[in-house]
Amino acid sequence: MKQPFPFSAIVGQTDMKRAMILTAIDPSIGGVLVFGDRGTGKSTAVRALASLLPPIKAVKGCPVNSAKPADCPDWAGVKARRTHEIPTPVVDLPLGVSEDRVTGALDIEKALTKGEKAFQPGLLARANRGYLYIDEVNLLEDHIVDLLLDVAQSGENVVEREGLSIRHAARFVLVGSGNPEEGELRPQLLDRFGLSVDVASPTDIDERIEVIKRRDAYDNDHAAFMLRWQAEDAALRDRITSARKALTKLKTPDQTLRDVATLCVELGADGLRGELTLLKAARAYAAYRDDTALTRGHVRDVAALALRHRLRRDPLDDAGSGTRVTRILQEVLGA
Amino acid sequence: MKQPFPFSAIVGQTDMKRAMILTAIDPSIGGVLVFGDRGTGKSTAVRALASLLPPIKAVKGCPVNSAKPADCPDWAGVKARRTHEIPTPVVDLPLGVSEDRVTGALDIEKALTKGEKAFQPGLLARANRGYLYIDEVNLLEDHIVDLLLDVAQSGENVVEREGLSIRHAARFVLVGSGNPEEGELRPQLLDRFGLSVDVASPTDIDERIEVIKRRDAYDNDHAAFMLRWQAEDAALRDRITSARKALTKLKTPDQTLRDVATLCVELGADGLRGELTLLKAARAYAAYRDDTALTRGHVRDVAALALRHRLRRDPLDDAGSGTRVTRILQEVLGA
Amino acid sequence: MKQPFPFSAIVGQTDMKRAMILTAIDPSIGGVLVFGDRGTGKSTAVRALASLLPPIKAVKGCPVNSAKPADCPDWAGVKARRTHEIPTPVVDLPLGVSEDRVTGALDIEKALTKGEKAFQPGLLARANRGYLYIDEVNLLEDHIVDLLLDVAQSGENVVEREGLSIRHAARFVLVGSGNPEEGELRPQLLDRFGLSVDVASPTDIDERIEVIKRRDAYDNDHAAFMLRWQAEDAALRDRITSARKALTKLKTPDQTLRDVATLCVELGADGLRGELTLLKAARAYAAYRDDTALTRGHVRDVAALALRHRLRRDPLDDAGSGTRVTRILQEVLGA
Amino acid sequence: MKQPFPFSAIVGQTDMKRAMILTAIDPSIGGVLVFGDRGTGKSTAVRALASLLPPIKAVKGCPVNSAKPADCPDWAGVKARRTHEIPTPVVDLPLGVSEDRVTGALDIEKALTKGEKAFQPGLLARANRGYLYIDEVNLLEDHIVDLLLDVAQSGENVVEREGLSIRHAARFVLVGSGNPEEGELRPQLLDRFGLSVDVASPTDIDERIEVIKRRDAYDNDHAAFMLRWQAEDAALRDRITSARKALTKLKTPDQTLRDVATLCVELGADGLRGELTLLKAARAYAAYRDDTALTRGHVRDVAALALRHRLRRDPLDDAGSGTRVTRILQEVLGA
Amino acid sequence: MKQPFPFSAIVGQTDMKRAMILTAIDPSIGGVLVFGDRGTGKSTAVRALASLLPPIKAVKGCPVNSAKPADCPDWAGVKARRTHEIPTPVVDLPLGVSEDRVTGALDIEKALTKGEKAFQPGLLARANRGYLYIDEVNLLEDHIVDLLLDVAQSGENVVEREGLSIRHAARFVLVGSGNPEEGELRPQLLDRFGLSVDVASPTDIDERIEVIKRRDAYDNDHAAFMLRWQAEDAALRDRITSARKALTKLKTPDQTLRDVATLCVELGADGLRGELTLLKAARAYAAYRDDTALTRGHVRDVAALALRHRLRRDPLDDAGSGTRVTRILQEVLGA
Amino acid sequence: MKQPFPFSAIVGQTDMKRAMILTAIDPSIGGVLVFGDRGTGKSTAVRALASLLPPIKAVKGCPVNSAKPADCPDWAGVKARRTHEIPTPVVDLPLGVSEDRVTGALDIEKALTKGEKAFQPGLLARANRGYLYIDEVNLLEDHIVDLLLDVAQSGENVVEREGLSIRHAARFVLVGSGNPEEGELRPQLLDRFGLSVDVASPTDIDERIEVIKRRDAYDNDHAAFMLRWQAEDAALRDRITSARKALTKLKTPDQTLRDVATLCVELGADGLRGELTLLKAARAYAAYRDDTALTRGHVRDVAALALRHRLRRDPLDDAGSGTRVTRILQEVLGA
Repeated sequence: MKQPFPFSAIVGQTDMKRAMILTAIDPSIGGVLVFGDRGTGKSTAVRALASLLPPIKAVKGCPVNSAKPADCPDWAGVKARRTHEIPTPVVDLPLGVSEDRVTGALDIEKALTKGEKAFQPGLLARANRGYLYIDEVNLLEDHIVDLLLDVAQSGENVVEREGLSIRHAARFVLVGSGNPEEGELRPQLLDRFGLSVDVASPTDIDERIEVIKRRDAYDNDHAAFMLRWQAEDAALRDRITSARKALTKLKTPDQTLRDVATLCVELGADGLRGELTLLKAARAYAAYRDDTALTRGHVRDVAALALRHRLRRDPLDDAGSGTRVTRILQEVLGA
Repeated sequence: MKQPFPFSAIVGQTDMKRAMILTAIDPSIGGVLVFGDRGTGKSTAVRALASLLPPIKAVKGCPVNSAKPADCPDWAGVKARRTHEIPTPVVDLPLGVSEDRVTGALDIEKALTKGEKAFQPGLLARANRGYLYIDEVNLLEDHIVDLLLDVAQSGENVVEREGLSIRHAARFVLVGSGNPEEGELRPQLLDRFGLSVDVASPTDIDERIEVIKRRDAYDNDHAAFMLRWQAEDAALRDRITSARKALTKLKTPDQTLRDVATLCVELGADGLRGELTLLKAARAYAAYRDDTALTRGHVRDVAALALRHRLRRDPLDDAGSGTRVTRILQEVLGA
Repeated sequence: MKQPFPFSAIVGQTDMKRAMILTAIDPSIGGVLVFGDRGTGKSTAVRALASLLPPIKAVKGCPVNSAKPADCPDWAGVKARRTHEIPTPVVDLPLGVSEDRVTGALDIEKALTKGEKAFQPGLLARANRGYLYIDEVNLLEDHIVDLLLDVAQSGENVVEREGLSIRHAARFVLVGSGNPEEGELRPQLLDRFGLSVDVASPTDIDERIEVIKRRDAYDNDHAAFMLRWQAEDAALRDRITSARKALTKLKTPDQTLRDVATLCVELGADGLRGELTLLKAARAYAAYRDDTALTRGHVRDVAALALRHRLRRDPLDDAGSGTRVTRILQEVLGA
Repeated sequence: MKQPFPFSAIVGQTDMKRAMILTAIDPSIGGVLVFGDRGTGKSTAVRALASLLPPIKAVKGCPVNSAKPADCPDWAGVKARRTHEIPTPVVDLPLGVSEDRVTGALDIEKALTKGEKAFQPGLLARANRGYLYIDEVNLLEDHIVDLLLDVAQSGENVVEREGLSIRHAARFVLVGSGNPEEGELRPQLLDRFGLSVDVASPTDIDERIEVIKRRDAYDNDHAAFMLRWQAEDAALRDRITSARKALTKLKTPDQTLRDVATLCVELGADGLRGELTLLKAARAYAAYRDDTALTRGHVRDVAALALRHRLRRDPLDDAGSGTRVTRILQEVLGA
Repeated sequence: MKQPFPFSAIVGQTDMKRAMILTAIDPSIGGVLVFGDRGTGKSTAVRALASLLPPIKAVKGCPVNSAKPADCPDWAGVKARRTHEIPTPVVDLPLGVSEDRVTGALDIEKALTKGEKAFQPGLLARANRGYLYIDEVNLLEDHIVDLLLDVAQSGENVVEREGLSIRHAARFVLVGSGNPEEGELRPQLLDRFGLSVDVASPTDIDERIEVIKRRDAYDNDHAAFMLRWQAEDAALRDRITSARKALTKLKTPDQTLRDVATLCVELGADGLRGELTLLKAARAYAAYRDDTALTRGHVRDVAALALRHRLRRDPLDDAGSGTRVTRILQEVLGA
Repeated sequence: MKQPFPFSAIVGQTDMKRAMILTAIDPSIGGVLVFGDRGTGKSTAVRALASLLPPIKAVKGCPVNSAKPADCPDWAGVKARRTHEIPTPVVDLPLGVSEDRVTGALDIEKALTKGEKAFQPGLLARANRGYLYIDEVNLLEDHIVDLLLDVAQSGENVVEREGLSIRHAARFVLVGSGNPEEGELRPQLLDRFGLSVDVASPTDIDERIEVIKRRDAYDNDHAAFMLRWQAEDAALRDRITSARKALTKLKTPDQTLRDVATLCVELGADGLRGELTLLKAARAYAAYRDDTALTRGHVRDVAALALRHRLRRDPLDDAGSGTRVTRILQEVLGA
């Protein structure tokens, strides 16, 4: 099986790439939703994201990737006390996934062969401390969506079925791609994504040719192509690791907090989740740029990513939500 | 897993906090419904409530938390006669919960391995004498809602399925959060909640900044933050325990009964449940304030919490139900 | 678990109480439907009814409460020939009840452990010769309603499922409560109830205060409250037992039969069930009042209870069906 | 359990009683549909029909009541070669009946205990050579209706399910009652009933009083009441048996055939089933009246019963189908 | 069980009888759809068709009736190499048939008793090289219809379910009856029938009387009636066998091919299936008439049967499709 | 069972044949959708395609047809290391296919007999490196379609069900036929097909006669007919094999890349998938024609095949999408 297309080799799509880098620097930003028409490379990009994620430490054999042995759930019966380094978990949620594989369920094999009521963890367990990737979120069944929202909010997977009564940590970053042609997303689901990006096919002929050329090279001259671009990916990953460390030392002036709050009030973003996300995204961006203090400029550069999908639709304002964000950014931050 | 956000550290939201304290003082008030847009901290608050609840005495091993051995149901087969202190049960009703886990069901493991028709109690058993918490009540399936209403009214869980014929006490306080964007609640369900609160994001910039700061401290300086606020929670819990004791000695003048009845008739609240709840809430409030007799002022301060969600919608009265309550409060109590 | 609220302690609600007493005197009247908004004490009243019912004689161990050993169904395998006195069966039909528990079904335990196709009787068996109580009839699933109507009409439960082919007596009185807000009942279901009552919250302030006081005493001074009112319930039950005996000796003048028939024709009540029920209710009322012959006055006092729910809706007559009954009563009986 | 109300004791309802007697004389007429509002005694009458049916000869133990050992299906494994007399089978189709009990299905008990794929016959087998009675035909599920129509037409039950491939004779007379309030019947289902009758409550006061008196006697003076009327039922049954024998000797003049055909063409009855039924009903009626040849008068007296439910609805003809039958009867037969 | 009504004894209905004879001569014409109101004898006729079909040679025990041992599918495990003569298979598709019985499925008995994953063939296997008869095609479930269309087109049954992966020949002729009152058939389904016939009750009184007389004789004088008409059926079957042989020697002039193609183009029949069917039907008709070469007259006499159900509905042409066929026949063939 | 109709013997239908040849030369073009009315020979053509496909090398016994032993998935437990030549897999997706047979599922037989949780691969495994053929794509169930789209995009089948967690390569070419009368295809599904063709019945009488003649020969003179046309098919396959080799040496001038990109921008084709497909199709066409460099002419000849089904519907442009493609081709390429 071919390796995924390298992140660095994606032509253009600045917004999308920025959003993914920020969420890799600070996973608590809450992931990225990539929304656009078919054929705009959404899935390619999301699948490329994995190459940017630095590894994590986890207890050997722990089904929920716990950092410390004490955090391993009882039902896992893990005896090992050593940790090792593993790639950040990136778990696909395939269409047609059954609810029992999402939440985990009774282990039928053990039930049948040993008469034992053991828990077989599901994808939510495997995604703990990592990413949960949903391709074509619009096609996901409603009851699976509700379940994901519930767990994404509480950070905990509570299983009450088939006589089992289990709970375990399930903190993950939602990453998804969607297609507006297949219908809109529920506001509740939108709100769970930290950042959102709209993508479109480039209209510039030269950019399109460059896309085709790289794709052609990836298909027909795979090894050479990967060699060149994976090196660029590695450099980017190093920069992400540095930014992570810088993040803790970054200064947040009170004026910036005020800017962020004013912006959200002016935009009429529901709730406070927008403010927290914008603040974190701005900090991650500052750290990525190797700046030591947060400024109004950092806020301005990521505001659209963090807020656009949180606005109520305004029937009197024809301009899309993107335009509204830009206009109010100018009014509030004088940009 | 992080501890929940402390109740005392919630900024503003006076109504919501008062409603939760009152229901902790007198559980027979019937719980709280917190209704508001996404991102207003509903779930955070509801999850924080647990820290305010004093412990209860229960028979060891009794699946329905009975206070006395005699109250343990036969099917439980509990032999222990000693009681111990346990935290007030707070049971989550996860989305996707199956009916058999709510009501209890045939114990499949025993049925398969021993050929025995034993009852495995469900969440309703576990919630007896405690709280049943439903996050996103709007997303709950209708047949589960009907079932909860039925049990909440009778205080008893009657199970007739899979050849089982079981009944046990299931007295619990419903605590829930909902989002008006996801559709209205059925009046029947509303009526089951003792008190109701509407929450909204603060519009005051300084308050928003304070919220963000505390959240930030909770996320990034967890230990210190918890140390400070859990102390405040403990003080509040002591005050609740005192209020509980004071409650039994509290005097209820006949004039207050008349005030309460007049208020409900004027408001056109359906049925008598509003009157009983208002009376109990006012008493709990008086006890909390360490007053020895119920006054018109106590009634006034909690009337909106107890009645707003019980009014019929009045198509000729544009003002929301909150405004109607205020206006009639003034007419009746001259406040 | 607390004892139910005593019947005698219910404030006001004359119609409802009269209807329940009549059906306790002559169960063949066919039960009571209590219809009203939430919070009007419907369920409390229906649950209180049980305390009014005198005991019955039944064969020991017979699953359908047969009066004589010969009436016990073969499949029950009952060997005992002695009868004993048991309380009149009052069976709850919980929401979420599965069809197999209503009608009875294959006994899975026996099937699995002994490979035997035995019948496990359901709620219809248990309700034979007693009451079947449906709280919130509007919420019952349609296929369960159809099934109940079918059995209520034939007095026999015919089970054809899972390879079983069983029939047994299932004569019971339907008692139910409903809420008009949850939708209207099908005429077919209405017609199965002998008497019907509409209840509403009292609008008189003093009556409301009395309700709250008694409820408060029931909640907070339970033992003393029960002591006082259960005595009143016992006296009422004695009066019911006397009335039952008097019933057989009561005279029915031909003129009263003519009055009853004329009344139903004038009212346009469908079918003859109204006439039979009105006649029985009037007789029971006469016996309760210790009168020895049926008079026009007895008919007048119970006509609305027996007929109101059997009228076709008249689109040209704005007045409700209650008013129509009153008007025609006056025309026919000159009351 | 009480015996059913005697057929002879039914007050009035001439049409309905005639239809039932005719179908008892010649079952190939195809049964009766009784249609009317609730409370008009439909079910009582249909259940009373059983007392009119003379016994049949059947092979001992044959699950499909075969008249000769050779007709017993192979899968029945019947070894007995003797026949005995049994009451004409009258099989109830209870609501909630599962498809497997209608058609028959895999015998689960044998499958589980002996690992054998045996057929357990269903209600269609039991109804062979007898009556299949559907109370409240409108409430029957659509897929059960389709299945019945299919079998009623072919006279054969073909079972292809659970790995079984079985067929057996299933010739039965459909008898049903319905309520127009619950919706109309599909023309396909109507057409399967040989005769149809509309019933209504009597509007004559004296007739109503007579109904109530007989019902009262049946309820309160059961033994005496049954003694008197069962004797009348027996006399009627004898007359039916005589008529059956007379039927084979009855002459059918060609002119009567022509009358019948002309009548159906004029009425625009779909298909030829109406003609055949009318001919048979008229013959049965002549035999019942002890006449030796069929006349125009016999046709006239049963034409409405046989044809009314087979007419297409005529939107330009306000008069109901009953009136149309009467008018055209007059035109064609000069009655 | 009575023998079916003989084909030759059907009164009138020339079109229907011709269509059935042609399809018996050349099964590759693709069967007959008989469409008409209830009571027009559709089912009787279709069931009578079986008596016209000459026997086929098939391998003993082969579940798909293969002509040669080599054609028997592996999964059948047939060892016998001898063929014998069997009646042309005519398989009923009963309503309520489950998908597993249509396509075949895992043999549960073998799976449970021997732990073996064997295939139990279904009705499609049994119908191979014969007829599949669907009474009331309108009532068939959609997913069964889709499945039949798929198999009817490919001539192969592909089973991919329950871990089985099986394919076998399933070439059959669809024969069906339908009722326009129950809704129209999908064009896709219509197109699968080679010929189509509309039937109606005769309006001629004498013809109706003849129908009733024969039906009466069939019912009441069965043996004599069958003796007379089965002889006629046998003669007809001999003529069909001769026609089959003559078919291969029949000459098809190029001008007739041109006539057929022109006719279909003028009629706007979709696709080429109409042309092929018309050609085959005309040839079969010529062979049946013992002619040695195909002429324009043969085409004319069967064109309506083969084409009427393949025309697109023309909203501007009020005349039914039958009339359109007649008009264009005249224009093209000058008939 | 007869062999499929030979590809070369198809009369006319140039577009369809060209599309199939191109996709056989370069499978990464992404398959063909054949859309047209019933009876236009769609299925015949698609089934004929198999004869054009050269064989592939695959590991013996590998369930996903891997080219190298290292690519065989672990769960397959394949030990053999030798490869052999097999026909390019062409897998039918039968209607009524169950999800478990598409994706693969738990092997029930092994689970029951050995208590082992083994994976039984499904049709997606079998189709790897080959073709997946869907007849009547419009009739496929939605959840199966979503699943296919998901896999077709990622080239990987991810199975999370019944406690299994499996992934394997599933790269296949979708080939399908559809009927516009049965409803439109979702744009998402359209986009997955590389090329699309609309077919219609020929309107030329001589062409129609030729079609009938060949079909007649295929039916009635099978052996001779196949002998002649299979030779032509073999020649065509050789030419395809040569074109495959030529493909890698083919030159792609930058101007052609620019032509392709300009064309797609002008046409407003969503995404970049159109460009990539057009480029590949043009190359394959050049190779098939034995040309050594790609020219504007090659692009022009295949542009409609590759782009027509990717255009957004333009409500202001009455001309169908085919016409738009032609017009813009002329404007951009000056053809």
